Amino acid sequence: MSNDIKDLKQPAKAGQKQLDSIHVFAPATVANVVCGFDVLGFAVNEPGDEVIMRVTDKPGITISKITGDDGRLPLNPAKNTVSVSVEHYLRSIDRLDIGLDIELHKKMPIGSGLGSSSASTVAGLFAIKTLLGDDTDPSTLLPFAMKGEEMACGHGHADNVAPALLGGFVLIRSYEPLDVVRLPHPAGLWCAIVFPDVDVPTREARQIIRKNIQMKDAVTQWGNIAGLVSGLFMQDIDLIGRSMKDVLVEPVRSMLIPDFYLMREMAMEMGAVSFGISGSGPSVFAFTRDEETAKRITQKLQQHLTNIKIGSNGYVSTINDAGPRVLG
Amino acid sequence: MSNDIKDLKQPAKAGQKQLDSIHVFAPATVANVVCGFDVLGFAVNEPGDEVIMRVTDKPGITISKITGDDGRLPLNPAKNTVSVSVEHYLRSIDRLDIGLDIELHKKMPIGSGLGSSSASTVAGLFAIKTLLGDDTDPSTLLPFAMKGEEMACGHGHADNVAPALLGGFVLIRSYEPLDVVRLPHPAGLWCAIVFPDVDVPTREARQIIRKNIQMKDAVTQWGNIAGLVSGLFMQDIDLIGRSMKDVLVEPVRSMLIPDFYLMREMAMEMGAVSFGISGSGPSVFAFTRDEETAKRITQKLQQHLTNIKIGSNGYVSTINDAGPRVLG
Repeated sequence: MSNDIKDLKQPAKAGQKQLDSIHVFAPATVANVVCGFDVLGFAVNEPGDEVIMRVTDKPGITISKITGDDGRLPLNPAKNTVSVSVEHYLRSIDRLDIGLDIELHKKMPIGSGLGSSSASTVAGLFAIKTLLGDDTDPSTLLPFAMKGEEMACGHGHADNVAPALLGGFVLIRSYEPLDVVRLPHPAGLWCAIVFPDVDVPTREARQIIRKNIQMKDAVTQWGNIAGLVSGLFMQDIDLIGRSMKDVLVEPVRSMLIPDFYLMREMAMEMGAVSFGISGSGPSVFAFTRDEETAKRITQKLQQHLTNIKIGSNGYVSTINDAGPRVLG
Repeated sequence: MSNDIKDLKQPAKAGQKQLDSIHVFAPATVANVVCGFDVLGFAVNEPGDEVIMRVTDKPGITISKITGDDGRLPLNPAKNTVSVSVEHYLRSIDRLDIGLDIELHKKMPIGSGLGSSSASTVAGLFAIKTLLGDDTDPSTLLPFAMKGEEMACGHGHADNVAPALLGGFVLIRSYEPLDVVRLPHPAGLWCAIVFPDVDVPTREARQIIRKNIQMKDAVTQWGNIAGLVSGLFMQDIDLIGRSMKDVLVEPVRSMLIPDFYLMREMAMEMGAVSFGISGSGPSVFAFTRDEETAKRITQKLQQHLTNIKIGSNGYVSTINDAGPRVLG
């Protein structure tokens, strides 16, 4: 994708409309997608985060308000992934002269495995890009979003920020150099997501993954990712389902998720195409062929979690092809 | 794919035409395709093997002639992969009453990494299938062809027999259960193949591959296979080229191939899209965007091998979408 950044190094010219505030939404994302550890992700319609960004008179970035985070996120702009990635972007276009105030409204749980930090970061970057009238390809923002991820998770991966930014289903073919490919998907694919309210920090969820694996398991895994990608292009939901198996990461990470295999059995019995961990968990997701099945699965799994005294959030969505958007 | 086998358990009825001899060709194949170890392969137009099969009066299979093998292949039908796989097929349809004589004409080098045994086996199976008027999907022959591979290489893999049998570009998504997916490819993709005449037995080429690998290398590999599959569907030859990198198998197997990295440099400088080992080697192949470039690369690499006193064969082909065919 193009990495050109158009000439934004000057304030808006006379007669050119310069927005002075904007309210944007960026979506949650499901990374890994079972067999595509660290290279696949897709965006959903809900949940997601919102950023309200206002141009101020004084150069520099402030964060005046964060809601929905139970006080867990820093208001200090040097420590918040949103302001840090926006500052990286402004530095790259030599516009550190701008003054900005940010409100961040978390509309999704933190530490859920749904790309919470990515949604915030992408909302911030999409806000400043739109404020400045930067009409370059959104993929030019990816390196800045990855900076935010590095800060949030200790690992600058792109499998949440890329789909949050570009929308749809995204393959990160390579990190060095960064090579991102938008994949198609069957229109009728629905996604049921359940977040069991248990604590699975991303850093630790990464640390428990084996560093050394068997070649034969890797072959199984890349047969499956090739099958999943083929199924997406062929709109073959059966093939997508058959391919979504993970012999390497899920056996380990599923230990951190209450009743993971029981929830899978429930979802598959109710007609899910596939079931697995979203990102590093604890959220789980199922693909289905229709909204009704996705709703029933979400309800059933949430009911089960209630029965074992675990709170949860549930979401039902198609795949979000638009990515971030301006609200209101 | 369908596994129905139509009722062939009776000899041809009166009035139904039963062939009493047939001459077929089955193509060479390039397995692995650089980043798809054990799961990807494609068929080429040349070289390939030929089988002439005749119905005889006496039940059982004989092999009356093998040419082009320098006496390396067994005439004993219990030890030859062609007759063994044909016998497996006949047993499955309860037709061991049939008498057959086989001539095998090797038109390609043995031990070349071009699926030599697969081409022979598929030619034999396609011959008997056609002789008997079996019009089920060719994929029903795959398990019998894999039996032949198991005998020839000590490993019943499908990445040569599947493309030889089905034609085109093939993904073996899974072995248990067997799940084979035909992939599209850009029409304008050409293939330059050079077989340096050095000995690389398939069994040993497998044994030198690491059994344990690093997760991070596996992630690189499955990002690439996902990129290659995407490139095939998107007809994006640049993406195909960028994705055809192998960090796991090539670094080891290339040691068995004279001047592998030098040949790669030559091919890439001459405009190849990609360059790598065919199957377990020693054959190498390059994708190109046109016939002329493929021809020039083949000539240049063969000239280089001559200079270092190694004989070679060279082939130039598009991808063979037809698979085996009846000759003459």
